Amino acid sequence: MTPERLSLNTATVSKQWNLRQCVEGCQRHGFGGIAPWRDKLHEAGVGEGARMIKDAGLAVSGLCRGGWYTAEGALTTAVLDDNKRAVDEAVALGAACLVMVVGGLPKGSRDIAGARGIVAEGLAKTLDYARGLDMPIAIEPLHPMYAADRACVNTLSQALDLCDDLGAGIGVALDVYHVWWDPDLAAQVKRAGKDRLLGFHICDWLVPTRDMLTDRGMMGDGVIDLPGIRAMVEATGFRGLNEVEIFSSENWWKRDADEVLTEVVARGRDCC
Amino acid sequence: MTPERLSLNTATVSKQWNLRQCVEGCQRHGFGGIAPWRDKLHEAGVGEGARMIKDAGLAVSGLCRGGWYTAEGALTTAVLDDNKRAVDEAVALGAACLVMVVGGLPKGSRDIAGARGIVAEGLAKTLDYARGLDMPIAIEPLHPMYAADRACVNTLSQALDLCDDLGAGIGVALDVYHVWWDPDLAAQVKRAGKDRLLGFHICDWLVPTRDMLTDRGMMGDGVIDLPGIRAMVEATGFRGLNEVEIFSSENWWKRDADEVLTEVVARGRDCC
Repeated sequence: MTPERLSLNTATVSKQWNLRQCVEGCQRHGFGGIAPWRDKLHEAGVGEGARMIKDAGLAVSGLCRGGWYTAEGALTTAVLDDNKRAVDEAVALGAACLVMVVGGLPKGSRDIAGARGIVAEGLAKTLDYARGLDMPIAIEPLHPMYAADRACVNTLSQALDLCDDLGAGIGVALDVYHVWWDPDLAAQVKRAGKDRLLGFHICDWLVPTRDMLTDRGMMGDGVIDLPGIRAMVEATGFRGLNEVEIFSSENWWKRDADEVLTEVVARGRDCC
Repeated sequence: MTPERLSLNTATVSKQWNLRQCVEGCQRHGFGGIAPWRDKLHEAGVGEGARMIKDAGLAVSGLCRGGWYTAEGALTTAVLDDNKRAVDEAVALGAACLVMVVGGLPKGSRDIAGARGIVAEGLAKTLDYARGLDMPIAIEPLHPMYAADRACVNTLSQALDLCDDLGAGIGVALDVYHVWWDPDLAAQVKRAGKDRLLGFHICDWLVPTRDMLTDRGMMGDGVIDLPGIRAMVEATGFRGLNEVEIFSSENWWKRDADEVLTEVVARGRDCC
């Protein structure tokens, strides 16, 4: 793909660049969009961040992230209010969606069904608020290895069941890293369709993977069939950007960020 | 549960004990059974190993392991012959089943559907041989984090679909470590039923998990709802042993093996 089909998730260069540097980097390398994490956005200031992204002519493929409904063991006003603020920030950015990492098991809990109940209730409340502002909510199913400590929504099928229960205004963000292994992937991407597919994130799964959180690979360095999954996604009619999100403490986070973006563009061209 | 409901998978003390020591340890601690890995069995000699287990009055909850059909990129005589030998060894032991870790992606491949095809074909061939010897084959779905490098059968649903395709003589070995996160677990355990549930393996999922392969927890030290999953399994009519399989390079493999078995018995009593 050409660089204007790419969006830079700021996590990819989170150790090197602040939001302004990310925006300027996206311009220099010809990216079509950006997906800020909220910490970078807060650091820049929401208004100022929104302005610089708009001035740069970048689309916002998503805001990372809302969710974490299980953080306090039960839904609290603090958690719900933070999700409302995330919706407001996504609106300020004109983001395509607010990406939700829903939270794992509450501390000390072994009740994953209970955690999933909290998440469903929290999503319903945030969705109610987001609908009033026309901001789509995107549930990101996370790899099952994060079920305990990051997100208890772990398959596309499960996320779509939630969407079916919750109705209009909610869909999914599909990250190849989390779903590439799923024997039901093709069927569930088709089920999601254009209306429910709100985001598409790319990177690669390395063999071996040396760290469960921060050893993601650059596209082409791992075992994910990126062209195959992209074809599934685009067959639905999805025309959003290809958002590159790579957590890599021992490799890409240690490199010069311009070098990283050069490589992202090359791999986008050759491996996706 | 009482110790006679437990089986010791020899991996739990693989760094401390050979097969004879495992057998004697099981006797000392009152275990009802044992599940040898093939390397330990070969080291002792198959005939001698079978004899010592029989003389000790231990059941064999499973032989670990056959499978690895993708090891050479395509099904080869070497791979198929090794699986036949594994069946023969399971028969020699009077094992309840031969446990299959099916193999991941062939080296250099990104074609997980292709790998799954190789596995299905390999299982069919081994099953054909095993049926003639009345040895049940148990597919062990492995956690999705092992899809690339160990097993491309990653959910109970997927394993049961394979069983449905393959017919009589094949079922599943359910290890809580691999499936605890699955939102479809209860439904799929029920679907498996007594006929397809050939093995039940226990341990725990630690938070954090520091190594993807060798940081399993002792029952009670993690977040898995062991009594809940055991209740699902036993509701099918399953009456097999509770096989304890803990890979733990930094903790349990470093301890005195009798101390490990004492703890297994205590946790079996209090946490399962």
